[in-house]
Amino acid sequence: MAVNKDLAKERASATFRPDAITRQLFGADGMHVRRLAYRRAAEDDELKLAEKFPTLPRDEVYTEAIRLYAVCRDRLETYGYKDQGNEVAGAEHFYKEALFIGPVHPFGVHHLMFMPLIESQGTDEQIAEFKPKAECLEIIGTYAQTEIGHGTYLKKLETTATFDKERQQFIMNSPTLSSIKFWPGALGHTSNYAAVMAKLIIDGKEYGNHAFLCQLRDLQNHQVLPGVELGDINKKFGFDMMDNGYLRFTNYRIPRNNMLMRYSQVSSDGVFSSQSIPQIAYLTMMSVRTLIVFGAADDLAMAATIATRYSAVRRQTANSKGQEPQVLDYQTQQWKLFPAISTAYAFTFTGHALYSIYKEIVSAVQAGDSSRLKELHCLTCGMKAFASETAVGLIEVCRRSCGGHGYSHASGIPKLYAQCVAQCTYEGENTVMYLQCARSLITFYMAKESGQPLPGMLKLLEESADVPMVLTSAKKFNSELYILLFKQVFLRKIHKVVGHLQHSAQATDYETAWNKHSVELVTMAKVYCQYVTVKLFADTLKLDSWDSQAREVMTHLCEFYLVSNIVQNSGQFLETRTLQIEQLKIVKERSSELLTMLRPNAVALVDAFDYPDRLLNSCLGRYDGNVYDALYDYAKQSSLNTHQVHPSHHKYVKPMQRALQCKL
Amino acid sequence: MAVNKDLAKERASATFRPDAITRQLFGADGMHVRRLAYRRAAEDDELKLAEKFPTLPRDEVYTEAIRLYAVCRDRLETYGYKDQGNEVAGAEHFYKEALFIGPVHPFGVHHLMFMPLIESQGTDEQIAEFKPKAECLEIIGTYAQTEIGHGTYLKKLETTATFDKERQQFIMNSPTLSSIKFWPGALGHTSNYAAVMAKLIIDGKEYGNHAFLCQLRDLQNHQVLPGVELGDINKKFGFDMMDNGYLRFTNYRIPRNNMLMRYSQVSSDGVFSSQSIPQIAYLTMMSVRTLIVFGAADDLAMAATIATRYSAVRRQTANSKGQEPQVLDYQTQQWKLFPAISTAYAFTFTGHALYSIYKEIVSAVQAGDSSRLKELHCLTCGMKAFASETAVGLIEVCRRSCGGHGYSHASGIPKLYAQCVAQCTYEGENTVMYLQCARSLITFYMAKESGQPLPGMLKLLEESADVPMVLTSAKKFNSELYILLFKQVFLRKIHKVVGHLQHSAQATDYETAWNKHSVELVTMAKVYCQYVTVKLFADTLKLDSWDSQAREVMTHLCEFYLVSNIVQNSGQFLETRTLQIEQLKIVKERSSELLTMLRPNAVALVDAFDYPDRLLNSCLGRYDGNVYDALYDYAKQSSLNTHQVHPSHHKYVKPMQRALQCKL
Repeated sequence: MAVNKDLAKERASATFRPDAITRQLFGADGMHVRRLAYRRAAEDDELKLAEKFPTLPRDEVYTEAIRLYAVCRDRLETYGYKDQGNEVAGAEHFYKEALFIGPVHPFGVHHLMFMPLIESQGTDEQIAEFKPKAECLEIIGTYAQTEIGHGTYLKKLETTATFDKERQQFIMNSPTLSSIKFWPGALGHTSNYAAVMAKLIIDGKEYGNHAFLCQLRDLQNHQVLPGVELGDINKKFGFDMMDNGYLRFTNYRIPRNNMLMRYSQVSSDGVFSSQSIPQIAYLTMMSVRTLIVFGAADDLAMAATIATRYSAVRRQTANSKGQEPQVLDYQTQQWKLFPAISTAYAFTFTGHALYSIYKEIVSAVQAGDSSRLKELHCLTCGMKAFASETAVGLIEVCRRSCGGHGYSHASGIPKLYAQCVAQCTYEGENTVMYLQCARSLITFYMAKESGQPLPGMLKLLEESADVPMVLTSAKKFNSELYILLFKQVFLRKIHKVVGHLQHSAQATDYETAWNKHSVELVTMAKVYCQYVTVKLFADTLKLDSWDSQAREVMTHLCEFYLVSNIVQNSGQFLETRTLQIEQLKIVKERSSELLTMLRPNAVALVDAFDYPDRLLNSCLGRYDGNVYDALYDYAKQSSLNTHQVHPSHHKYVKPMQRALQCKL
Repeated sequence: MAVNKDLAKERASATFRPDAITRQLFGADGMHVRRLAYRRAAEDDELKLAEKFPTLPRDEVYTEAIRLYAVCRDRLETYGYKDQGNEVAGAEHFYKEALFIGPVHPFGVHHLMFMPLIESQGTDEQIAEFKPKAECLEIIGTYAQTEIGHGTYLKKLETTATFDKERQQFIMNSPTLSSIKFWPGALGHTSNYAAVMAKLIIDGKEYGNHAFLCQLRDLQNHQVLPGVELGDINKKFGFDMMDNGYLRFTNYRIPRNNMLMRYSQVSSDGVFSSQSIPQIAYLTMMSVRTLIVFGAADDLAMAATIATRYSAVRRQTANSKGQEPQVLDYQTQQWKLFPAISTAYAFTFTGHALYSIYKEIVSAVQAGDSSRLKELHCLTCGMKAFASETAVGLIEVCRRSCGGHGYSHASGIPKLYAQCVAQCTYEGENTVMYLQCARSLITFYMAKESGQPLPGMLKLLEESADVPMVLTSAKKFNSELYILLFKQVFLRKIHKVVGHLQHSAQATDYETAWNKHSVELVTMAKVYCQYVTVKLFADTLKLDSWDSQAREVMTHLCEFYLVSNIVQNSGQFLETRTLQIEQLKIVKERSSELLTMLRPNAVALVDAFDYPDRLLNSCLGRYDGNVYDALYDYAKQSSLNTHQVHPSHHKYVKPMQRALQCKL
């Protein structure tokens, strides 16, 4: 079908080539690798059904997810796709992405959590024994930590592993209802093994939580083993394809050798020994949190693409000339979409920058220097929470900006919402994450007070919080000036909250004082993350690799990101006296001007994310803009349309009519 | 099962009886009527399955919804439940609510839109002909207005009704793809009739949009008639039970008499005549928007009940004494839940007050005085948007406050979210609603400038915007002072935006100026709605009917509502110079104090909403607090647990294992 005229016009009048931004995001080679991987997935007839996921019953979605994985393994072989240590930009990554095989796919947990755990916590012998089996899928595993009554706070996990010296076994038990393992992905049906976190008990004495490899199902016939009770935990908001499960042990025995013993051991005569876990063991967790920044950016970029393209096609409410303008021409619509577009870029660039910091710190740790691990902890906790929370809020704005059709699964946005919002909770609940970030910021602040030097992204704590602001006009964009604004707000906030904590702690204990100011601490952590994001986004624009026209547009978008965030959080800037009311007015006016300046490039900016239709999976976000044909097709495929007359009519409506003595 | 100890303790230590608030909300009689209706629904074995709605495939949900309606009609007869003009508090209303038979039930549209339309737009003869048939369900109807390409702006609807004088018929056509009717509820399967909005054409001349009664299906066998194409529009974010549909006409003929002719007529010789529709015809729309305030309050109150009870039961993260506190004790959790509780009460009381205003104005209109209709339009547009948007935001906060379990449908909150968020879009998309409210506020402002008197809730426009604020301490709650703050912000905002509009309109036309300031206009409308809510909430506390202990707690809750909203919107108060930075600090401190003051009554405050477990339909929100048992039961019922070994294992996983030469 021909491309919708309005969309074609938008593209023709853009001031830059979208490719130039795509290339900046992925590199020239990366862009082609990604396109090829996506195209191969899109053109493969065996991979069609996944597009219907939001409309299928759960059982079919699960079945289809398993089938897709089987096809995928075959194709990865055919194409020779195998990423080596490039979690965010390899061909294998992109190909799997196009097939929805990621962290929430039933086999995702096996690859992303189970196998890495064996490799990091297993002894060399354990690795030699279990890794090959896991690779050929003889063993399919999950990681069972969360219990029905225990999430974030691991010390209170109740599952026990009691050592039986005579039989050289551990006896696994779920002693209470609240100790039932709950939520682990792929536990319900896919896995035949689990790495179970449980409390070690030897001769009645407790030795803390450790990981135990437990076989759950027969390797031949996949039947659940005696002593094990497990199943799927039923429907959730999203994640239909994932068999999150529950697991209950009753005197279930595993060999002594199935405790992962790299850092803690139980000898055959029941002697417990342990070495402190090197900090490098925590790196996996930090890597996952970094990847969530990418995940959130991706979900938001897709929602922004869908809503922006649709807003160029959709027309509404006649102007005085009797014509219906494109919805994209309304200022209120721009104020919904442009924050979404700019934030999606902000988090994408921030994700890349964070990933570089992560790699740097990993190399340093491997070379024996762990000095920056605490910085990484602070950054990844905060940014995981900030990116997921902000992205999901804007995804919902995009969804509502599509009017009624945004409510249909045809738009593709409800699924993005349900998927992205889970990231606010898993891998560390966001409020807990912000508080960890805050705790770490306060520690750095105290270190600075006692004269210690601060690492990379914390250096700003050494700067003065009292730089007077000279903003008198916003005409000439100066990213340094804006970054200074965000920095000042943060410094003034942390200065204030430290004062409050110290004052309160005099009257009570530190723990009570901490809780009393925790809302303020969360806000302070968010302000820090906002600073990190504006700083990393603005720094990206300084790279030499930019095409000049693309850089010009991206500079406007970055400026909009900065000013719109000031406007949205005006209270913080005024309250801390970082901005005067008159200066805020200048910023507000500038935000309106920028809406008008960005308008002509809106469609090209989302085209530059370069998502294929298959991945967007949206009637409204199609590249060709033929949204109404697509909606009509989607409607016709409804499962309710299998019958022209629904059986419930004869079964329930007819008897009612008769009872009401209707003359039929 | 016994009530959870923590919940029992919370209830024992509350400072008031929840009944006292429930009675204030519904009246003593109303409270008993509601409880009886809910209990009858809960104890009826034929009505059980509805509780499983979130987990059933869509086809089963639809079937079950139809069956429930049939049982419901039978029971209404048995119990003698029949509400007469009491849309918000009758036994029939409450009974149907317990069965999920409301505006989004397939038969809801028939009763709430189709029949009222015939009664208001039909001639006496048409009413006499169609009403009895609709009452006995010979005719089951829907209202088909929205088209696939046209929503809010009715003038551009494309469906045509062309008069054929010879055969005394209208020929219905959907001339384009974008003219296909899309979204009408109950159109896909349930209805055999629709009131179709279409453009009247006589002798090639257009006469605007009118409503035409079109039979869609055979009344005997329910088959779709020739010339009509229709079906369900497939899966949406929520509303699984509703068969929202599409409809396409191809030269489909209906008798001339099927145009609803109370206010516009086509005579047998093709002469068109029309009388202006009296303003009373718009009252239905305003009534529906008022009911949305209730709907949003209800959804939020349920989410707050669930999250608060769960937060009293759930324990997490040991304190220095090694005990895990109730999650409800964390300040960050209180800052999530207490705004939800206070806002749910604010909207409930505001809903009641608005409904009284609505009734007052309807009586006046019926007595020939339409002077307050514009006020009602302004209030209902704004409050519909404000209540739905605010409520859904807080529902999501409640959901996330439940951690991982909040993501499961077991919590009951995802369904509340998907249901409530639709209210942001239907019956007038929220941004459009805010802009209509803003337009109307500006009109009143201009009227005041030219010396005209203003009605009820607009009188504040006559007051000065320059009252200096004397807040020096927040210890003694003074609702009048706080209301004055909200009033001042609004007055200063509208004053400013009028200035901007006038200034911009000099350089361009008013339409362009309006668009240029539309983001500001939306904000101004929200500020007005916030004022209306605080005013009506605070006024409720002055009623004599309050129990004194309940009033004391509710007064604290109202104060918290006011101060927390100032804190959340601090930018507006500072920017307009309504508050000084030092004054804002006082308000902030007070908000923290109030969290501590409200903490002991949190559970009792949500108990006072008095929702039965059946309606909450939540494992986390149960009155007895046995959340983990409920979650475990919910899990076991998963459709994926029908097989112990899922068929996909043998079909796809085994062949993969073989291909990978796994040694099995």
